[in-house]
Amino acid sequence: MRNIKLTLEYDGTHFFGFQKQKRHRSVQSELELALKKLFQKKIKVIASSRTDSGVHAEGQVVNFHVRSKILLSKIQLGLNRYLPEDLAVRQIVEVPKNFHSQFLAKWKTYEYRVLNAKHRSPLKRFRAFQVLEPLNLNKMKQAARLLCGKHDFRAFEASGSRRISAVRTIRKFEVEQKGETIYFTVEANGFLYKMVRSLVGTLLEIGSGTLEMADLNKAIGLKLRSNIGQTVPPQGLTLTRVTY
Amino acid sequence: MRNIKLTLEYDGTHFFGFQKQKRHRSVQSELELALKKLFQKKIKVIASSRTDSGVHAEGQVVNFHVRSKILLSKIQLGLNRYLPEDLAVRQIVEVPKNFHSQFLAKWKTYEYRVLNAKHRSPLKRFRAFQVLEPLNLNKMKQAARLLCGKHDFRAFEASGSRRISAVRTIRKFEVEQKGETIYFTVEANGFLYKMVRSLVGTLLEIGSGTLEMADLNKAIGLKLRSNIGQTVPPQGLTLTRVTY
Repeated sequence: MRNIKLTLEYDGTHFFGFQKQKRHRSVQSELELALKKLFQKKIKVIASSRTDSGVHAEGQVVNFHVRSKILLSKIQLGLNRYLPEDLAVRQIVEVPKNFHSQFLAKWKTYEYRVLNAKHRSPLKRFRAFQVLEPLNLNKMKQAARLLCGKHDFRAFEASGSRRISAVRTIRKFEVEQKGETIYFTVEANGFLYKMVRSLVGTLLEIGSGTLEMADLNKAIGLKLRSNIGQTVPPQGLTLTRVTY
Repeated sequence: MRNIKLTLEYDGTHFFGFQKQKRHRSVQSELELALKKLFQKKIKVIASSRTDSGVHAEGQVVNFHVRSKILLSKIQLGLNRYLPEDLAVRQIVEVPKNFHSQFLAKWKTYEYRVLNAKHRSPLKRFRAFQVLEPLNLNKMKQAARLLCGKHDFRAFEASGSRRISAVRTIRKFEVEQKGETIYFTVEANGFLYKMVRSLVGTLLEIGSGTLEMADLNKAIGLKLRSNIGQTVPPQGLTLTRVTY
């Protein structure tokens, strides 16, 4: 039995998230369909994260087990032929038997793009969330630094998630502006449900002046029950990297 | 009568080019429809260039004449409300009576994106043309420099165009790679029909070794009747800037 690790890129616009569902098109179901066509048997994939509906990926990692002698390069070519145009295998590698893309993930990086402009951008509409008000970049950078480290992040969690602890470690949180686009890059050892979008929503409220830095200080580690900031929409979010 | 200049951004994917046509959706018809809704009268727009089907724009310039006292900012907001999501007005300004977006255009800049990778990129599929073979970047840069200047470019023209002279001046032609994407940026005082896509196609053949630099030298200014290189597809092309 071989254990094969894939790095996936997908345009999340027309997927109802990663996870297989009965009535909706998902990344998992399209991938498992292509695997079935290629190997002529049912194969189940395990993903590092179950990205939400509308969220993109440049570096989602999945793995699956298969008994087959097909060369890795042929598997990748075959899958990319069978997969729809909004989903592709960017890298393929054989990994040890016990590799598990979800449980063994050490760090995950997400990028969130905000279009800070008064008018719509047709070319960025599927990749960025538009914010009309002027934003204070320095305040947002400062807030991002405050959020770095090991904290209880339950104030940045959407309801409906199953988890034991809300403690996570953010080891990098950068805010950079290029032209009208602000890039939020956050790397952590794990994320609570909708945590990235809640973190970015909170930074945006700090940037626009709705929230004060003191509010953020209160929220970090203080086990607030309710979300501190708004949750921004999915189209700005991309899972860029998972490391093991 | 006011003369109003608009800078447009559009995602060309679902447009059959700029120019109005009977049966197909075009940028011009969508824009004129929005103008009619806003001003309650028929208004015709003049564009700097008639971009082809599938070609994008970040800085297409159009102008139109109207008798109206509505503030420019209100016109822009109104148009962006009426326009479909793949078309938007990014800038608006009032210009002198004799301003003509087509005849008075001095320099136009186009960007062409090539994804130089073995595997598909779902997130770039509407913005880049994929080339599988390795490309020699230095050779392409060298060829781009050769093409700069005032030349007869008929070897880079698709048939079916109406023009008197094929002489144009390219004042900038840059080739840059960022990750897997190669950006071709070309600025000229005008372009022949499908000239940018023919120039890029030719550079790609030089980059892959199909064409030699000597072939290019022969083509420039030598009034060859047939196209020297392939014409690359439209989704990689964006009209980025027009100056007056």
